[in-house]
Amino acid sequence: MFALEMADLEGIAALPGLEHATPDMVEGVLGEAARFMEEVVAPVNRSGDEHGSRVEGDTVVTAPGFKEAYAKYLEAGWAALPFPEEHGGGDFPHVVGVAVQELMQSASMAFSLGPLLTQGAIDALIEHGSDELQSTYLPKMVSGEWSGTMNLTEPHAGSDLGHITSKAVPQEDGTYRISGQKIFITFGEHDLTDNIIHLVLAKTPDAPAGTKGISMFVVPKYLVTDDGGVGERNGVTVVSVEHKLGIHGSPTCVMSFEGATGYLVGEEHQGMRYMFTMMNAARLSVGMQGLSISERAYQQALAYAHERKQGAEIGGAKGEMVPIVRHPDVRRMLITQRAFIQAMRFLMYENAALMDIARRSDDEEAAAAALRRAELLIPLSKAWSTDLGVELTSLAVQVHGGMGYVEETGVAQHWRDSRIAPIYEGTNGIQAMDLVGRKLPMDGGSVIRDFIGWIGASADVAAEAGFDRMKSRLEEAVSKVTEATTYFAGCADDIKGALAGATPYLRLLAQVAGGAYVARAAVRAKAKIEAGIGDAEHLGEQIALAEFYVDQLMPQVFGLVPAVTAGAAPLYAIEL
Amino acid sequence: MFALEMADLEGIAALPGLEHATPDMVEGVLGEAARFMEEVVAPVNRSGDEHGSRVEGDTVVTAPGFKEAYAKYLEAGWAALPFPEEHGGGDFPHVVGVAVQELMQSASMAFSLGPLLTQGAIDALIEHGSDELQSTYLPKMVSGEWSGTMNLTEPHAGSDLGHITSKAVPQEDGTYRISGQKIFITFGEHDLTDNIIHLVLAKTPDAPAGTKGISMFVVPKYLVTDDGGVGERNGVTVVSVEHKLGIHGSPTCVMSFEGATGYLVGEEHQGMRYMFTMMNAARLSVGMQGLSISERAYQQALAYAHERKQGAEIGGAKGEMVPIVRHPDVRRMLITQRAFIQAMRFLMYENAALMDIARRSDDEEAAAAALRRAELLIPLSKAWSTDLGVELTSLAVQVHGGMGYVEETGVAQHWRDSRIAPIYEGTNGIQAMDLVGRKLPMDGGSVIRDFIGWIGASADVAAEAGFDRMKSRLEEAVSKVTEATTYFAGCADDIKGALAGATPYLRLLAQVAGGAYVARAAVRAKAKIEAGIGDAEHLGEQIALAEFYVDQLMPQVFGLVPAVTAGAAPLYAIEL
Repeated sequence: MFALEMADLEGIAALPGLEHATPDMVEGVLGEAARFMEEVVAPVNRSGDEHGSRVEGDTVVTAPGFKEAYAKYLEAGWAALPFPEEHGGGDFPHVVGVAVQELMQSASMAFSLGPLLTQGAIDALIEHGSDELQSTYLPKMVSGEWSGTMNLTEPHAGSDLGHITSKAVPQEDGTYRISGQKIFITFGEHDLTDNIIHLVLAKTPDAPAGTKGISMFVVPKYLVTDDGGVGERNGVTVVSVEHKLGIHGSPTCVMSFEGATGYLVGEEHQGMRYMFTMMNAARLSVGMQGLSISERAYQQALAYAHERKQGAEIGGAKGEMVPIVRHPDVRRMLITQRAFIQAMRFLMYENAALMDIARRSDDEEAAAAALRRAELLIPLSKAWSTDLGVELTSLAVQVHGGMGYVEETGVAQHWRDSRIAPIYEGTNGIQAMDLVGRKLPMDGGSVIRDFIGWIGASADVAAEAGFDRMKSRLEEAVSKVTEATTYFAGCADDIKGALAGATPYLRLLAQVAGGAYVARAAVRAKAKIEAGIGDAEHLGEQIALAEFYVDQLMPQVFGLVPAVTAGAAPLYAIEL
Repeated sequence: MFALEMADLEGIAALPGLEHATPDMVEGVLGEAARFMEEVVAPVNRSGDEHGSRVEGDTVVTAPGFKEAYAKYLEAGWAALPFPEEHGGGDFPHVVGVAVQELMQSASMAFSLGPLLTQGAIDALIEHGSDELQSTYLPKMVSGEWSGTMNLTEPHAGSDLGHITSKAVPQEDGTYRISGQKIFITFGEHDLTDNIIHLVLAKTPDAPAGTKGISMFVVPKYLVTDDGGVGERNGVTVVSVEHKLGIHGSPTCVMSFEGATGYLVGEEHQGMRYMFTMMNAARLSVGMQGLSISERAYQQALAYAHERKQGAEIGGAKGEMVPIVRHPDVRRMLITQRAFIQAMRFLMYENAALMDIARRSDDEEAAAAALRRAELLIPLSKAWSTDLGVELTSLAVQVHGGMGYVEETGVAQHWRDSRIAPIYEGTNGIQAMDLVGRKLPMDGGSVIRDFIGWIGASADVAAEAGFDRMKSRLEEAVSKVTEATTYFAGCADDIKGALAGATPYLRLLAQVAGGAYVARAAVRAKAKIEAGIGDAEHLGEQIALAEFYVDQLMPQVFGLVPAVTAGAAPLYAIEL
């Protein structure tokens, strides 16, 4: 709740249409969600990893327990939480939806992917689908009775979707016949729901080349009957399920479309644009996976560190073994995890709250500014958090010593699961390109300038509250970020030079932004302690974590500036 | 060969007893080794991962192909290469043995672990075994007909061996009866050799508490008959094989000793001391795994980057896809791998060469100094290289995009395999403790001072050769390292404070040392180019890699200084 408070949940709940989402109400919902995810979803996570899923006939059998857990998920109504009331949803703020997402992803990242993809498909239909498409599909997708997928990638078109070859041939009845093969389709086929609604990117016969020729279609697994029920099987089938490094519980399918009946979403040739409108939410959700899996792994490492005895306490009785949580190096690993997790959480909850303001505020200027800031933060949320997901779950493995390498311990699964998040939904390299290519130039550079200004202001805020070292570290951070940002302003005619520095720049900016968030959190925590509001111990921890982060973690990226500003030449000086 | 040249192979070959190891001879051996490892060992690496090994009756069946590959390895005589001639070995320098190790580990890390453990057991017997033990076991172990293991860890004694409970009861015939359970025993049981010679740590009935009470025993799987053949089965059996995250091809066994016949190595209660004498070689070998697996993953990523087309060339024809190796961000990932790999190689070959000098030089002072420097470098070689192994194989996965997450691609295996190396042979946290607790104080701090002096001198060497930016970066690096090192000098009464900064300090020192190595390599390469000696293209790459490393990779650790010097208090300010 403290992270939601930092994201100004109170202000969000005052936005038009969100009045019911009072902090008290939200606290109740999150408590329920936490209980549900822990009791129902978390227990199937290992089963998903151990059994994976397999093609059987023309369907995919999910891991033992997934069906039962999904049925309970449906019954409890969690699926509908974030969607508009008019489509049967709970109309909660996005930031609350994201907080529930965190709980579900921590419980089981693989399980959470089905609902996540469904959410993306719903968003696309709400935004761009005709009334008929909406009324046919949305009620059962919002309730979770039917699931959704996104069919984008083809063997030769991944990051570069302009080269997809799936075809959509218009029919006289207004439908299209869809043909082609799609790969990496998350929950493309499964046995959890009565129907699966595929959103498919394909090209019409007269389509222009490249991404401009892409259209989006709804292709249901079963055609829908006039009374809204499940009818005939459509021409879409699963070919195989990938054998992956992690998220085994989530079937990643090769899908074959053979003259399947498809329904155009919106207009022809607008498919890429429609994808972009969903992209912010999808990328933030994947960023949340980095956070969620880190949190899960951290909790496990912490429990192990309390239980495992090894080595004597420094300065304590010789020869008497103490829990390893007493050892400085183990504490460094655990606190590093915790401080980064908290910084990520502040960043991404804020990112979600900004999307709420952008969508709901009746102050147009405020809405526009919030959208810009949200768009700037999206690549940070996605790439920084998912890179950290891999790094922090690796620390959790390390805390376990040799037991961490044994699969039965379970912590290795989190590390394996985490590794997909820097890859999908736009690789982290693509995120960095998005940051320097699209986001920095927004509004003539004023969006990034304002953000750096806000980071700089955090130094003053910290100083006012008496956090002097935080102030000086943050000032140093701002000077590093400014130096790096200025470099890109000089790259207008040197796109390669800009892209060469993009990845280290994203890391630098995000980790410094994290410092601003935790510093502001420390200031708020201190004020609350002084005012006697809230749990002083928990608030005190926020201060200690912030100091650790700003003092010890944030400066680790200062040394990235030379890599940001070195230009492209060194990358082409070596023949590869 | 350039890395061996940097480690002064010529000087090593001039040491007493190594005169046969001329650079030409070594080049021939390495060429043969490379061919063998590529043709015979590399092909079984996937099989090891896919099939693992399984307990069958009282033995362990290794993965398909392992038996055949091992038989060829035996036949070709690679096992004997690094051992003394008097025991049937090839008496090659350690640095050459390490170079061959690199080739074998790159081919298959899992396969290489059998020979590695055997090597450790041989070293222990050479150093501490009686003539009788040596003549009974060494010939067949050196040839590779019999393998060796190290039985240290027990369920409650891993990093802290003082608490082992395995018992050794003396018998009237001078043997001991060994009882207890050992875990994480690499190649503890397998079907590759006729006999398995276990070295086992256990305590005699009257042993003092803690590590001082540990003795070392030889416990053969089969007792050896008077004529040196394989006799009766001894009381040691495999209980189970771990289901691990990686190195599936290497059976990690739980071993049960039930009144097994054991033979004391050296004297009672000296087991820990004997372990320490093998430790340098073992830790360096594990460090080499970080390098080797990174090299293997890099080669695979490079090949994929040339093959996979995606996205247009910047400034090139629009819409025409080019191999991703043309994209700046992909090049950054690949060059980062390559530059780090080269820096690690210089460090560890140097470390091995120092061990050769320490062992062989008839200049006592030089030998003593080399030993000190080698001991200082060991924790860097082990921890830095294995941490990098995980990071760099992760980059190799990332270069593959979505395909990297599919197990069939094979690159994910390297990432999983790499993850054990920071854990075993002393966790990297233990290495950092060793560095600040044992190595910094050596000779009143003069060993580390000399080493930092040597790094500083690299700046001048670089400047003389005209590498001005290298010079200034190295000078900055030395000032950071000096600041951090000075901190530990003030920690004499604050052990917790020293240990709190140990891990970031190790990273800082190692990565900066890497800068000194690559800078000196660049200087040598430039001199050779100017003198018209050697392959100018290859030498030019050494310069470009060094510039990339010193300019862009080395500074990334400068920001670790605050974490090194923050003291223990922040780690105890948060209740965990």
